[in-house]
Amino acid sequence: MSARTTGASRADLIADSALALLAERGMRGLTHRAVDEAAGLPTGSTSNLARTRSALLELAVRRLADREARVLGPLETPGPGDGLGAVVDGLALAAYRSLTRNRELTLARYELALEATRRPELRRYFDATGARFRDQLAALVTALGSTAPDRHVLSLVAWLDGLMFSCVAGSFTADVPSLDEVRTGLRELLDAMLRT
Amino acid sequence: MSARTTGASRADLIADSALALLAERGMRGLTHRAVDEAAGLPTGSTSNLARTRSALLELAVRRLADREARVLGPLETPGPGDGLGAVVDGLALAAYRSLTRNRELTLARYELALEATRRPELRRYFDATGARFRDQLAALVTALGSTAPDRHVLSLVAWLDGLMFSCVAGSFTADVPSLDEVRTGLRELLDAMLRT
Repeated sequence: MSARTTGASRADLIADSALALLAERGMRGLTHRAVDEAAGLPTGSTSNLARTRSALLELAVRRLADREARVLGPLETPGPGDGLGAVVDGLALAAYRSLTRNRELTLARYELALEATRRPELRRYFDATGARFRDQLAALVTALGSTAPDRHVLSLVAWLDGLMFSCVAGSFTADVPSLDEVRTGLRELLDAMLRT
Repeated sequence: MSARTTGASRADLIADSALALLAERGMRGLTHRAVDEAAGLPTGSTSNLARTRSALLELAVRRLADREARVLGPLETPGPGDGLGAVVDGLALAAYRSLTRNRELTLARYELALEATRRPELRRYFDATGARFRDQLAALVTALGSTAPDRHVLSLVAWLDGLMFSCVAGSFTADVPSLDEVRTGLRELLDAMLRT
C-alpha cells in the first residue's frame, strides 16, 4: 500500500472520488463499489472506511466543506479595512471559480443539498457550513454599512447560489458569464443594499 | 378503467407521480415500478406509457414545464403598461409560491436540472423552457428601462433561482422569508439595475 492511500490521504482519496462520482453520475451513481473503482482501490476499501450509505455521504459532505473553505479563502479574514471593492472582488472570484475550475465540486454540492432534504443527519452538516458562511457575510455587509444585514445576507446568498446553479445546471450552462460580468452584477447588488 | 386514468389524464397522473417521487426520494427513488405504486395504477402502466428511463424523465420534465407555466402565469402578458411595482409583485409572488405551496415542484425541478447535466435529451427541454423565461424577463427589464438587459436577466434569474434553491434545499430551509421580504429584496435588486 503506497503512502498516497494510507490514513488521512486514503480517506481524502475516497471522499474525493465520491464527490467526483456525484458530479458525474448523480446520487444514483454513488455506490461503495463505484467509489472503490473510481479511487483505484481494492473492492471493500470504501466499505471499510464508511460502512453505510449515510456514513459515505457524511464523509463526502465533510470533504466538500473542507475543499469549499479553501475556495472561499479570501472571505475568511475580512476586516473593517476591507472596502466594498475588495469584498466584491473576493466574492466574485469565489463565485467564478465555482462555475469554472470547481464546477465538479459545485455539482456535487447540489446533489448533496438535495439529498439532505431527505436525510436529517446530512442536513446538520450543511446547516453548520451554511451558518458559517452566513455569519461571514453578515459581518461583511454590516461593516460596509448595511441597515438590514439579515435580509441582505439572504439576498447575497440567493444571488450567489443561483448564479452557480444556473451556470452549472440551469438556464445559463451554455452561457457562463465572465469574471468581470460576475463582478459587475455583484457590485450592483451590493450598491443597491448599501444605498437604501 | 375510470375516466381519471385514461388518455391525457392518465399521462398527467403518471407524470405528477413521477414529480412527487423525485421531490420525496430523489433520482434514486424514481423507478417505473415506484411510479405505478405512487399513482395507484397496475404494475406496468408507467412502462406502457414511457418505456425507457429517458422517456419517463422527459414526461416528467414536460409536465413540470406545464405546471410551472401556470405558477408563472402573471408573467406571461407583461405590457409596457406594467410598471415596476406590478413586475415586482408578479415575480415575488411566483417565487414565493415556489418556496411554499409549490415546494415539491421546485425540488423536482432541481433533481431534473442536475440530471440534465448528464442527459443531453433532457437538457434540450430545460433549455427551451429556460429560454422562454429569459425572453420574458428580457422584455420586462427592457420595458422598464434597463440598459444592460442580458446581464440583468442573468442577475434576476440567479437571484430568483438561488432564493428558491436556498429555501428548499440550501442554507435557508429553516428560515424561509415572507412574501414581503421576497418583494423587498427583489425591489432592491431591480431598483439597482434601473438606476445604474
